Amino acid sequence: MANLGFIGLGTMGGQIVDVLLCKGHSVTGYNRTRSKAQWLIDKGMRWANSPRDVAAAADVTFAMVTNSDALTAIMEGAEGVLGGLGRGKSFVDMSTVSPTVSRAFARRVREKGADMLDAPVSGSVVTLQQGKLSVIAAGGRESFERVKPILEDIGSKVTYIGDNGLALVLKIALNLNLAVQMMAFSEGVLLAEKSGISRDTVVEVFTHSAVASPMLQYRGPFVLQQPEKAWFDVNMMQKDMLLAMQLSRELNVPLPTGSVSNEFLTAARAMGMARLDFACVFDVLAQLSGKSSQ
Amino acid sequence: MANLGFIGLGTMGGQIVDVLLCKGHSVTGYNRTRSKAQWLIDKGMRWANSPRDVAAAADVTFAMVTNSDALTAIMEGAEGVLGGLGRGKSFVDMSTVSPTVSRAFARRVREKGADMLDAPVSGSVVTLQQGKLSVIAAGGRESFERVKPILEDIGSKVTYIGDNGLALVLKIALNLNLAVQMMAFSEGVLLAEKSGISRDTVVEVFTHSAVASPMLQYRGPFVLQQPEKAWFDVNMMQKDMLLAMQLSRELNVPLPTGSVSNEFLTAARAMGMARLDFACVFDVLAQLSGKSSQ
Amino acid sequence: MANLGFIGLGTMGGQIVDVLLCKGHSVTGYNRTRSKAQWLIDKGMRWANSPRDVAAAADVTFAMVTNSDALTAIMEGAEGVLGGLGRGKSFVDMSTVSPTVSRAFARRVREKGADMLDAPVSGSVVTLQQGKLSVIAAGGRESFERVKPILEDIGSKVTYIGDNGLALVLKIALNLNLAVQMMAFSEGVLLAEKSGISRDTVVEVFTHSAVASPMLQYRGPFVLQQPEKAWFDVNMMQKDMLLAMQLSRELNVPLPTGSVSNEFLTAARAMGMARLDFACVFDVLAQLSGKSSQ
Amino acid sequence: MANLGFIGLGTMGGQIVDVLLCKGHSVTGYNRTRSKAQWLIDKGMRWANSPRDVAAAADVTFAMVTNSDALTAIMEGAEGVLGGLGRGKSFVDMSTVSPTVSRAFARRVREKGADMLDAPVSGSVVTLQQGKLSVIAAGGRESFERVKPILEDIGSKVTYIGDNGLALVLKIALNLNLAVQMMAFSEGVLLAEKSGISRDTVVEVFTHSAVASPMLQYRGPFVLQQPEKAWFDVNMMQKDMLLAMQLSRELNVPLPTGSVSNEFLTAARAMGMARLDFACVFDVLAQLSGKSSQ
Repeated sequence: MANLGFIGLGTMGGQIVDVLLCKGHSVTGYNRTRSKAQWLIDKGMRWANSPRDVAAAADVTFAMVTNSDALTAIMEGAEGVLGGLGRGKSFVDMSTVSPTVSRAFARRVREKGADMLDAPVSGSVVTLQQGKLSVIAAGGRESFERVKPILEDIGSKVTYIGDNGLALVLKIALNLNLAVQMMAFSEGVLLAEKSGISRDTVVEVFTHSAVASPMLQYRGPFVLQQPEKAWFDVNMMQKDMLLAMQLSRELNVPLPTGSVSNEFLTAARAMGMARLDFACVFDVLAQLSGKSSQ
Repeated sequence: MANLGFIGLGTMGGQIVDVLLCKGHSVTGYNRTRSKAQWLIDKGMRWANSPRDVAAAADVTFAMVTNSDALTAIMEGAEGVLGGLGRGKSFVDMSTVSPTVSRAFARRVREKGADMLDAPVSGSVVTLQQGKLSVIAAGGRESFERVKPILEDIGSKVTYIGDNGLALVLKIALNLNLAVQMMAFSEGVLLAEKSGISRDTVVEVFTHSAVASPMLQYRGPFVLQQPEKAWFDVNMMQKDMLLAMQLSRELNVPLPTGSVSNEFLTAARAMGMARLDFACVFDVLAQLSGKSSQ
Repeated sequence: MANLGFIGLGTMGGQIVDVLLCKGHSVTGYNRTRSKAQWLIDKGMRWANSPRDVAAAADVTFAMVTNSDALTAIMEGAEGVLGGLGRGKSFVDMSTVSPTVSRAFARRVREKGADMLDAPVSGSVVTLQQGKLSVIAAGGRESFERVKPILEDIGSKVTYIGDNGLALVLKIALNLNLAVQMMAFSEGVLLAEKSGISRDTVVEVFTHSAVASPMLQYRGPFVLQQPEKAWFDVNMMQKDMLLAMQLSRELNVPLPTGSVSNEFLTAARAMGMARLDFACVFDVLAQLSGKSSQ
Repeated sequence: MANLGFIGLGTMGGQIVDVLLCKGHSVTGYNRTRSKAQWLIDKGMRWANSPRDVAAAADVTFAMVTNSDALTAIMEGAEGVLGGLGRGKSFVDMSTVSPTVSRAFARRVREKGADMLDAPVSGSVVTLQQGKLSVIAAGGRESFERVKPILEDIGSKVTYIGDNGLALVLKIALNLNLAVQMMAFSEGVLLAEKSGISRDTVVEVFTHSAVASPMLQYRGPFVLQQPEKAWFDVNMMQKDMLLAMQLSRELNVPLPTGSVSNEFLTAARAMGMARLDFACVFDVLAQLSGKSSQ
């Protein structure tokens, strides 16, 4: 069993650490707010006082933070991950951040003699708990082979994508599809509902149909009732859409349905729904249909 | 076992009759081109010379034809279904046609003392053969209960939706999602491919991800290679999009991603791809990305 | 001076008759509601009891009605225009209707020995009164030359387009631009207003800028205050958008900004604004921006 | 007559200096490439060796450069404008740059005891030469009043908008409309052309219609033939669209037609047309319509 580190113990990060502990790994963790990590410490996770200490203590350090700025915050400075890395160590970033930012850190990690992978996950806490999380990883092939067994403890399907940054590109491309699928779903549900079918029935049929992606299976019912706490809120979804838009312009790939969907995320924020699960694009469209929501 | 009729023995219709015969039902069939039905006759299907004769011979007559015009063609006239229906008989239309047209026929069927259900299927021939086809049905509740056992022989999940026409509305809403999901998928695949990931890898990851609907699982690989024969061509897909657009205006539901996707089906036709599987919206977008396709 | 007929004395039709009377023409008129025509009768217009009587009395009969159905209503039947037409007469339809419907009537008019032009106008009542209305006409070249002097009495710029129906196509293409320009204007105004510039100032600058089309010059201020009576309401605008959508599919021309704009007309109807001037797409977008309108 | 400075003597900047010289002003100029300024030196413009020298020599210094980076380049450093400014001087930036960047420089200019206006122009070289250029300006009201007479020598209509940055916001909102109007125009032209009307006739009618903005009047004919040198190329247009997108997200204003149009600028770049006048979105759409362009 490996000597692991984990920085960023939010909903998803915390659950992954839980899984890693269950599989018998030793894990040293750090989170900006320590109290949120208490349940993991109770389960045997060792606490470190800084990202640097995590990286110093572990052979393989994982991170899962909110965005490029948060990644920069844990990497740099006296207390940063870069200060704790050294020859033979691996750093695996599971955050969804800008591929450009990630590649720049990969270079700095290499200068320390260590190596870095970007390994974002596709799926939700539910998928993780079902053992069906999909992990995609990019970076040096050898580094990948070294950490692959650990990644397989996290997700049932682990795929090597290629050079640094490419797993992030793929993750961003996937998330673009989340937003569009949710919009199209909203259009379909409203069409059927305004025809006279109950919203429950419509959601039931959709989530058992040819268009029922795993995401629609768990998020579709959110148009009946928003979850108590957003699984992935509008701000987070739009952050990823903006990464997609940026790639779109760097690579010259038009995103017709992606850009239209992004406008509805903007509308959701304008209408005060920034912190709701992004399933609330349904409510934006409902309003445009003269229909009150939920 | 029931005494059934079936009109329209194309790819999907033919396969359904095959399933019904396997389950032990007696089936009388009719198709505009008799030769295409020979394999079913060889398996025990009785042949009738007209839609009217099918309806006259059967207790429950099914139809699966291309569009509203084709439905009208088999229903009306001296040789039409309406002429063969009578008290106690049921007519189950599995075609995707205009709900308005379907409701009008339902009224005329009732005048004959018979009753009609609209019962479109969601899924492909593959789904049917896996026994996982989803059937949604609308019309009188009693009529539904009467034919339900037969519908369950066709699909594993049979759902009653409500009054005549509503199953069609739901089917149209689902098909709208097919088109949009395929567009978003194309945007994501091109973004990843132009970043340097091979198209194969991208498709592989997508079809095992949170956005992998059953449809994307079977149609996604078509961006690597179009099938020899379109599963659902651009013309058919756009026919259903136009039904969605019509509902959109009758019910005042805006369809932002639906309408944008529809423009790419129009482009596909302009670029000579009307008879290809509608997965070719990928090729339209590839061209807009300065990328040759396949 | 010519012996003219005019059917459809609504806002625009009535003003045109007024202009024709001022120029010294003899005009026989008909309107579904006679009371609306009294002011023209007072100015010397002769009243006829049916479209047929107008066509029988006049050498050149004009029509300006709401849509394809209204055109059909005045053309057919015992009291219809077709019954009053005969050798040497001309029929000039200024309505915006389906080119297909118009071409069909052109054939039937020719069978009567008469000829037909489609001659829709581009501009508003204000443009007409300024003598700057633009008229485009299609049909036989000789028929056009015959009525050209009368068309020049209506608009300052008269252009011959080609065969029957083509002037309508061009008019529909122009009206498509009305809807999109109004949407883009709304986006720009809201962007500037939410930055802190007063809506008045924004409208003032826009209506004196490089994007200030004649339409935006008169309709732009409607986002400050809707006119008492819609100049062109959402229903009428969407009717023309649907004609554009129909052409789009017949000719395989994708309409990306047109179709997106059409969704906002649908939203306007859903939100109860069907009878407001279509400038109210601004209000739909304002709502999506979390901004109350007017 | 005033003692003026001008930095950035490209097509538009150069023409403005020419106008200012004609009106009798004394102008000191600077351009990265001196040779492009020779014609103005020949007409009496004094040459300075750096932006700093211009600002030191002039009472009012104007700048017109390509983007935020170019503005930063002429402002900062030992040779930058900031080094030459001092009490009582004015700096007027006519470039289209990020309002945020502009506001930051306005603060630094104020620290020098000078003041800054953002004063972008709306219109083309042609509009300038016709004396019909529209100038919008933002910053301190007093600073505006001081330079207003000079701005009036440049454009016939000078409007004060409000605090620093707001003229830029308005300019960006206007340019958003340029892109969308050009897309809608392309859709309309292709619809009419594929119906059988010659492209010349269509352009002629459009440029004399209710949708004929000044921009469409000069740019519309570019779909018949691209100008030898782009008036405003795809790269520049998209730069301004990205400024609009950024404002859209900061202010939460959805831009449905703006974002769709932006995707076609991306496509134009993907198809190798980055340096053509952005009228080439027509060619992108023509290709989607199965129509060869020009």
